[in-house]
Amino acid sequence: MEPNWTAVTDRALADLTDLVKMESVSAQGRMLEETASAVTRLLEAEGFKVERYPGRAAPVLLAEAGEGPRTLLIYNHYDVQPETPVELWDSPPFQVTERGGRLYGRGISDDKGELISRLAGLRALKEQVGRLPLKVKWLIEGEEEIGSPSLEGFVRQHAGRLRADGCWWEFGSIDPQGRPVLYAGLKGIICLELRCQVADSDLHSSNGAVVDNPLWRLASAVASLRDASGRVTIPGFYDRVHPPSPEDLAQLAKIPDESAAMQQAYGIRGFLDQAAGPAYYRRMNFEPVLNVNGFHGGYGDAGSKTVLPARGMVKLDFRLVPDQRPEEVVRLLRSHLAASGFGDIEVIELESHELPARSPIDHPFIQLAVQVADEVAGPGRSAVLHPSSGGSGPMHPFTEYVGVPVVSAGIGNHASRVHAPNENIRAEDFARGIRFAARFMERISQL
Amino acid sequence: MEPNWTAVTDRALADLTDLVKMESVSAQGRMLEETASAVTRLLEAEGFKVERYPGRAAPVLLAEAGEGPRTLLIYNHYDVQPETPVELWDSPPFQVTERGGRLYGRGISDDKGELISRLAGLRALKEQVGRLPLKVKWLIEGEEEIGSPSLEGFVRQHAGRLRADGCWWEFGSIDPQGRPVLYAGLKGIICLELRCQVADSDLHSSNGAVVDNPLWRLASAVASLRDASGRVTIPGFYDRVHPPSPEDLAQLAKIPDESAAMQQAYGIRGFLDQAAGPAYYRRMNFEPVLNVNGFHGGYGDAGSKTVLPARGMVKLDFRLVPDQRPEEVVRLLRSHLAASGFGDIEVIELESHELPARSPIDHPFIQLAVQVADEVAGPGRSAVLHPSSGGSGPMHPFTEYVGVPVVSAGIGNHASRVHAPNENIRAEDFARGIRFAARFMERISQL
Repeated sequence: MEPNWTAVTDRALADLTDLVKMESVSAQGRMLEETASAVTRLLEAEGFKVERYPGRAAPVLLAEAGEGPRTLLIYNHYDVQPETPVELWDSPPFQVTERGGRLYGRGISDDKGELISRLAGLRALKEQVGRLPLKVKWLIEGEEEIGSPSLEGFVRQHAGRLRADGCWWEFGSIDPQGRPVLYAGLKGIICLELRCQVADSDLHSSNGAVVDNPLWRLASAVASLRDASGRVTIPGFYDRVHPPSPEDLAQLAKIPDESAAMQQAYGIRGFLDQAAGPAYYRRMNFEPVLNVNGFHGGYGDAGSKTVLPARGMVKLDFRLVPDQRPEEVVRLLRSHLAASGFGDIEVIELESHELPARSPIDHPFIQLAVQVADEVAGPGRSAVLHPSSGGSGPMHPFTEYVGVPVVSAGIGNHASRVHAPNENIRAEDFARGIRFAARFMERISQL
Repeated sequence: MEPNWTAVTDRALADLTDLVKMESVSAQGRMLEETASAVTRLLEAEGFKVERYPGRAAPVLLAEAGEGPRTLLIYNHYDVQPETPVELWDSPPFQVTERGGRLYGRGISDDKGELISRLAGLRALKEQVGRLPLKVKWLIEGEEEIGSPSLEGFVRQHAGRLRADGCWWEFGSIDPQGRPVLYAGLKGIICLELRCQVADSDLHSSNGAVVDNPLWRLASAVASLRDASGRVTIPGFYDRVHPPSPEDLAQLAKIPDESAAMQQAYGIRGFLDQAAGPAYYRRMNFEPVLNVNGFHGGYGDAGSKTVLPARGMVKLDFRLVPDQRPEEVVRLLRSHLAASGFGDIEVIELESHELPARSPIDHPFIQLAVQVADEVAGPGRSAVLHPSSGGSGPMHPFTEYVGVPVVSAGIGNHASRVHAPNENIRAEDFARGIRFAARFMERISQL
């Protein structure tokens, strides 16, 4: 019996509203235990047996339900980014608000909307079939927004219990034309801070004649790390990077070019090397990247101040591709700085590294996800599969230790403002995400 | 009759205490009219005829007193820097407080202590001689800390009235060994801001694969402006710079090397090219400099944030030497940025430029100042004359339009914390500055 999708969606929206109210900001340790309990109640109501493990900052939930020859592993998180700057929100961050077809709230896209749409789809499937016709193992953590410090160890330790026919990743997106966009991989990431100090206290800038400038030193060091086209210039950085395979390149060629929509949405002045189409998606999927996330030191208010600052600081992230190794990249960076005369610049590793991860795009589980997304999206909105993606996340322990193919499919969109004020999803995508979840699980059970 | 120096100094300290109470912060337009009036009353009490001219932000005072064949022009200012950050002061900023032989307060060195010590010296000389035996023209502005926007025009317009045998500059200093340090010149200055923007709003840093990074662009532009030894690498920058004359080099060789004391006072890690002695002072006096005063953009708090910032900003100052021209240097900078692929970086001129200025070190007026400083300092503390200095200021209109030799002699020291919390002078230097002022004016009158 076909579920009453309106009723299913209304109930899911009520669940989502309740969950968004929980201010589960992991960076600030807010309401993490309570939110883990709320998620546990939602899962138990659908027949899940939920185990709760202590994480470094928040509980890790491992839930199991259903019976059948097939097993689906799902990964989500219940923590969110801080809501600041609150003044840039057009409605209260922890209150779900609908405006113009969009639902606003902190975490509504990342990752509570994903979690609830999946739960609602599972509920609908149970109603339809009378039972859950596959085994679902659901791993839900509360530390994703602070770098998942407990996850790798947890997955490694429980690898046997997590075995499944496929793993459904925590996010996915809908492109500007309404096409579902799925991803079969993530880049790795390293977050670093560079620090330079030339004196104990700030000096009058007349002393710049004899005292080195920490901001110039940092600028010069940062400048030496890449070129104007974005290519990293640290010796050895590309030694382990493979060119994309012919299959990967063929897959890139199928991706509809939405770079112009991206450019318009964010007012982007232009793309590196005027990248568009396959060249744009090749960079996003397969090229490692060095980002400068922040650069701070000295005077920054209006007008001038003739100061020679004592110190400065730079935040960097590297996005890595297979088979780059974070520890090796950090080592190459340190050697490069030392060899370039910047041995005095301190390199601080900010949090756990994440390794790149990819699954084979022709794996039946991944192809099934694409096919179901296609069907649910409807005509003229063919699903798009990226062989990897520009983003990062703790996917590697799943491919490495559990040995499971992983696919990203979800309800975000290019204007979801994830991590930013006015985070949102489209109500339509939420409803469609519920139908996708029900159909995806049903079809997995029939594999 | 020799004055009672203790009484003279006590009265000067009372005047200084009153004047420091006036919160004459020009950057914030605080109490400027009132402070100009307070200074006027002090001058009138000594027989000055004071004219008050409107400046762009604060009144300019031009005062005249005394009679004689010789004329001394004095330049001071009554405005001060903001007192922030207040929490770093160990006593209230606008209340003169004595601790360990030092007098603390905002503006106590720069420039109220200088102003009051000169007034007290003049008062003592009058008592001693029975009249003021030379003509004193005293120009006191209230916009020095905001770049003296009215001064050049004022000096140019009143050049005839300002003619004198010599001009006594607003500051001077005492080195760590108690030697008076005099300066016969200042560098010019340009303050600029560089801005770079790549999008209307911040992006997730995964987009760094295709979108350029404004902080890398700024870093790369800044890196291209100088080398690791501090030498500016903008083509044409040194075209008008002369090497020091043999007389200048001989003068540098006479300067006692206090670089180690400077290094210790500020915990400086090391000097560019290990400069010390004459090489150190050659840089301070004769080398143009590029400073990075500030660099800001993107994330700067604890930990990491994987953001691709939309924009960034850099503050720069150039210190110039004769015959460099600010407009030309800005033009060379713009051409260099454009030629280096950074034509998108906006260059904003922050305030009026100041031209470099120098007076001949063998001029009798300057030699007299050195000689008097020597006498007042006493044995073992020979006065030191720098042919120029590392600092800047609005000296050029005086040498150019008035055609007067200018010398800096005063009561600051290397630990005066000018423009910073706990600004101070040594009580001993204040008392000695009063005696210097009395003797200097007396000796000028006898020229």
